[in-house]
Amino acid sequence: MAKPISAAFLSVVCLHLFNASHTLAGEDLLAKARQSFEPIPTAPADLPGNPTTPAKLELGKMLFFDPRLSKSHAISCSSCHNLGLGGADAEPTSIGHHWQHGGRNAPTVLNAVFNKAQFWDGRAKDLEEQAGGPMFNPVEMASPEAHVAEQLKGIPGYGAVFAKAFPGDADPITMANVQKAIAVFEATLITPNAPFDRFLKGGADELSAPQKEGLALFMDKGCSTCHNGVNVGGGMYAPFGVVEKPGAEFLPRSDKGRFMVTKTPSDKYVFKVPTLRNIALTAPYFHTGKAWDLRQAVAVMGTSQLGVGLSEDEVNKITDFLNSLTGDQPVVTYPILPPSGAATPQPEP
Amino acid sequence: MAKPISAAFLSVVCLHLFNASHTLAGEDLLAKARQSFEPIPTAPADLPGNPTTPAKLELGKMLFFDPRLSKSHAISCSSCHNLGLGGADAEPTSIGHHWQHGGRNAPTVLNAVFNKAQFWDGRAKDLEEQAGGPMFNPVEMASPEAHVAEQLKGIPGYGAVFAKAFPGDADPITMANVQKAIAVFEATLITPNAPFDRFLKGGADELSAPQKEGLALFMDKGCSTCHNGVNVGGGMYAPFGVVEKPGAEFLPRSDKGRFMVTKTPSDKYVFKVPTLRNIALTAPYFHTGKAWDLRQAVAVMGTSQLGVGLSEDEVNKITDFLNSLTGDQPVVTYPILPPSGAATPQPEP
Repeated sequence: MAKPISAAFLSVVCLHLFNASHTLAGEDLLAKARQSFEPIPTAPADLPGNPTTPAKLELGKMLFFDPRLSKSHAISCSSCHNLGLGGADAEPTSIGHHWQHGGRNAPTVLNAVFNKAQFWDGRAKDLEEQAGGPMFNPVEMASPEAHVAEQLKGIPGYGAVFAKAFPGDADPITMANVQKAIAVFEATLITPNAPFDRFLKGGADELSAPQKEGLALFMDKGCSTCHNGVNVGGGMYAPFGVVEKPGAEFLPRSDKGRFMVTKTPSDKYVFKVPTLRNIALTAPYFHTGKAWDLRQAVAVMGTSQLGVGLSEDEVNKITDFLNSLTGDQPVVTYPILPPSGAATPQPEP
Repeated sequence: MAKPISAAFLSVVCLHLFNASHTLAGEDLLAKARQSFEPIPTAPADLPGNPTTPAKLELGKMLFFDPRLSKSHAISCSSCHNLGLGGADAEPTSIGHHWQHGGRNAPTVLNAVFNKAQFWDGRAKDLEEQAGGPMFNPVEMASPEAHVAEQLKGIPGYGAVFAKAFPGDADPITMANVQKAIAVFEATLITPNAPFDRFLKGGADELSAPQKEGLALFMDKGCSTCHNGVNVGGGMYAPFGVVEKPGAEFLPRSDKGRFMVTKTPSDKYVFKVPTLRNIALTAPYFHTGKAWDLRQAVAVMGTSQLGVGLSEDEVNKITDFLNSLTGDQPVVTYPILPPSGAATPQPEP
C-alpha cells in the first residue's frame, strides 16, 4: 500500500500553486490531462482469480439486491448502494440495522473496481473482500457470520443458481462464493462515456469552455495530485487537513481514519482519496457526509488540502469540470429472487 | 362496496362441501374453472381518467424507487414492495421509519390493479389513492404531507420529468400527480402467463395431475367462493374466522379490520380477500404475516373459513394448485433518479 503523502505532497502542491496563473488551452490541456487521467474502459474486465461468467454475474446481481442477507431481511447491498442514486444513498451516513447509523458516508459502488482498495480507510483490498464487510457489521446488515450461507441454503431456489455459477464446487453455497459473485456483479458497475472520457479520447468539444478552465484549475491548483487516474481518485491515501484541519463537522476528531487499520501514527486522519467519478450524483460529501453542496466541498478541499482560498469563480469552474465526470449509468434489470420457503430461516426484526 | 358475506356465504360453503367428493376431470374441470376465474391480461390497461404515456410511466417508476419520498430518504415504495420478491417483502410486517413495524403484512403490488380496493381493509379505492397512504404514514415513510411535493421540487431534475409526464399542467409537481404517475407504473406490474392462465386458455397439460386435483378441491371445498376472478381473490371482503376464529397469532383481537374504516359492527374482523396470484412468492401469509408455510395457511383457511379439516393430501394438492398461480414477473430496468442538489431538502434521520 502507498504511504500517505506529506513533504513530497506539499512540494508538489507548491509547484502547482506556482503554475496556477498559467492557463492551458486546446491540445496543451488535453496532453496535460492525459498525463494524469485515463478514460473509464467501455467494458468491464475480469477480476483476478474470479473470472466472469453469465451465471456468476446473474447470481451476484441477485445477491446484491437480496435483503435476506441481512439479519432483518430488510437491508440489501442495494439499500445503501442505490444504482439509481449514483451507487450511493442520499444520506450523510447510511441507516442500518435497528435504525443505527453507519460511521462514514457510503462510498459509491460505481467504478469501485478501479479503486486501489475499498472502504474510506482501505481496510478491504478489493471488491471481494469488501463484500464480506457490511453483511456482518452490527450497525449495517448485522447478520451473524455463519448465518449468510445458512440463510441462502434455506432458500430453495438458490441451490441451482449457485451450482451454475460455481460448477466445480461440491458445496457451492459458501460465504466465499457469495463474495466472489457480488464482486463480479459490482465489477460491471462502471460508467464509461462521461464528457471527460470523450474529451480524453480526443473530443475537444466535449467539455464546455468553463469546464476546460475548471480542468486546468483542477490540475494547476493541485487537486489532481491526489485525484487522478481512471477514477480521478481512489488510487492513494491522504491526510484530510494536510495543510489546515477542517472543522469537526467534516473531520470529527474521534474518527482517526486509516490509523484505526494500521495503528501507524502517520495514518491518523488519513483516508483513501475518494473517486470523483459521478460526484455530481452522490451528495452529500466527505466521509462524514456533511457537505451537501459540491461547491462547498471544493472550497474546503482548497483550504484544507491545498492551503489556497479558491475564488468563487474558480470554485464554480472546478465544479463545472466535476460535472463532466458523470458517465453512462449502469443499465440493470431488477433481478427476480428465489422465494423463501417454509423452512427458510426467518428474519429477526 | 360489497357487503361481507355471512348467511348466503355459509349456504354456498355447505353446497360445496356436499359436492366435495365429486371429482371433476378434463373439460368439466376447465369449464367449471372458467366460471370462477379469468386469466391475467397479457398487457396492462389504462386507468380510468389517468391514461398511460411513456413519460408518465417512466416518472412513476422513478417515484416508486425514490427513497427521498420518505422523511429519512431511506425508504421507497420498493422497500416493502420488492419486485424481486413477488412485489412484497419477506417480513411479517414491514420495517418503517425509525424501525417501527407496520400494522399488517405488506400486500403484493403485483396485479394489485385488479383488486376492487387497496389495503387489507380496502380503505383506498384504487392504486392512485393507495399511493398517497404509506408516504404519510408515520410508521412507514413518515413524510409530512406537504413535504413530498416540496422535496421533489427541490430535486432539480424532476421538473422536466414531471413537465413531460403532465404536459398540460402549469405546476406539474403536485401530490396528485405523484399518485397518478405511481399508479400508472403499478398498473404495469402484472404477471400474465402463469400455468393456471395457460390452462384457462385451453392448455389442458399446463397443470400437473396433482394441480388439477388441487384446483378441483379449491372449487369443491369452497375456497373459490371468495378467491375467484382474475386475481383469485381481491374482489370482495370476508370475515376472517367466519366459521371458527383462528388463534390470536393469526387474528389478534385488537385489529378489527374493515370495522376501523366503516364503523359498521358487521365489519368486525372483516378483511379484503387477498389475491392468491404469485402466492408462492410472498410468504409469510395472512394480514399478520405469521404463517410461513403456505400449506399451514391453506389448512387454517379450511378450518376458519370453511369449517373443514382438510387432509394432508388435500392441503398438498391445493398448495400444488396455488403454485400454478406464479406468472411471468415484471421485467423492470432500474431507474436512474435525478440527483439531489445543494438546495434539495435534506433527510431527517
